[in-house]
Amino acid sequence: MIFKQTDLAKMPQRYRAHFINSLSGFKSANLIGSVNHAGITNLSVVSSVVHLGADPALLGFINRPHTVARDTLDNIYATGYFSVNHIGQDFFQQAHQASARYPAEISEFSAVGLTEQYTGLPCPYVAQSAIKLGLQFKQKIDIELNHTVMIIGQIVEVIVPENSIEADGKVGIETQNSVCVSGLDEYHTTHSLGRLAYAKAT
Amino acid sequence: MIFKQTDLAKMPQRYRAHFINSLSGFKSANLIGSVNHAGITNLSVVSSVVHLGADPALLGFINRPHTVARDTLDNIYATGYFSVNHIGQDFFQQAHQASARYPAEISEFSAVGLTEQYTGLPCPYVAQSAIKLGLQFKQKIDIELNHTVMIIGQIVEVIVPENSIEADGKVGIETQNSVCVSGLDEYHTTHSLGRLAYAKAT
Repeated sequence: MIFKQTDLAKMPQRYRAHFINSLSGFKSANLIGSVNHAGITNLSVVSSVVHLGADPALLGFINRPHTVARDTLDNIYATGYFSVNHIGQDFFQQAHQASARYPAEISEFSAVGLTEQYTGLPCPYVAQSAIKLGLQFKQKIDIELNHTVMIIGQIVEVIVPENSIEADGKVGIETQNSVCVSGLDEYHTTHSLGRLAYAKAT
Repeated sequence: MIFKQTDLAKMPQRYRAHFINSLSGFKSANLIGSVNHAGITNLSVVSSVVHLGADPALLGFINRPHTVARDTLDNIYATGYFSVNHIGQDFFQQAHQASARYPAEISEFSAVGLTEQYTGLPCPYVAQSAIKLGLQFKQKIDIELNHTVMIIGQIVEVIVPENSIEADGKVGIETQNSVCVSGLDEYHTTHSLGRLAYAKAT
């Protein structure tokens, strides 16, 4: 079945949102942790975290400036730091609840029942998360085409279970029960098909 | 186990690449299809496709300008179009092989045994892929921090099986056997935990 641009334009807004959000493939499922100068913590569910490079270790994520995640952006600009926490199979429902529009004075941590954890950086980690990253804010890139922004951070701290690290450095995120997401609201566990050798032209 | 920035800096390059590439979470697994003016087609494996917005329907992906995927960039700049094709469980090994460094005059389609499909756009689709998107190139954003680029395209064509579309517009990409990837080389099928209701503050 083929949909052309005019077919996409005719879709009702909500239908199109579900449809288009499914098309990029499976997405990472993360909670972004941040805090404001008054000490009120914030969590937002983000499915757009993308690897930018390993040296320096950079991640980006996409955000609309004026949606639920606005507190996140304000906090990141104010403190210069944020955390990225993998959503795990055993708390994905609580994590999803953090996508609700809570007022700025309510911390999603207490609202959804997740636990703050600190190491010294000015951003809260999610204690329930097996894999947690602390990032220093580096750059905001405005995407004029649709008024979104890409926030780029450098990984300055990584918290992972020691037994998750394979001999060559790969972290077994499946063994840590990290989940992925498709579309706006479907969560998935994974089953490994195995690792493939570095591909060479033959 | 906590790794600080200095620990990351001390890692051997290949070890750090495996480590850092695992940290963003599960990634979409796509083949980008393109063609040059001489008619030579190209496929590259991309795990950084990210949803940017539904209206207009925009996707982005991250690329290093001078790696194996350089042909892809040259083709996109030349023709203004590219395709995004979900990697499926039944051909993920062939797809991975497309990441090898073939010379520009060799098409990855024939090198790895995948089939070109056309609808009229100046970019080849992968016939074996259940979910295929045709995109018009919109913008290149230079990420100065590490000399990568984000390529942004607008979805102008969507090819999906009719029975994959749910009543509210969501596409069941798990039912179509799309896979995801972790780190540089591990592929995964998925198992749905279900869809969650739109979260509301209570």
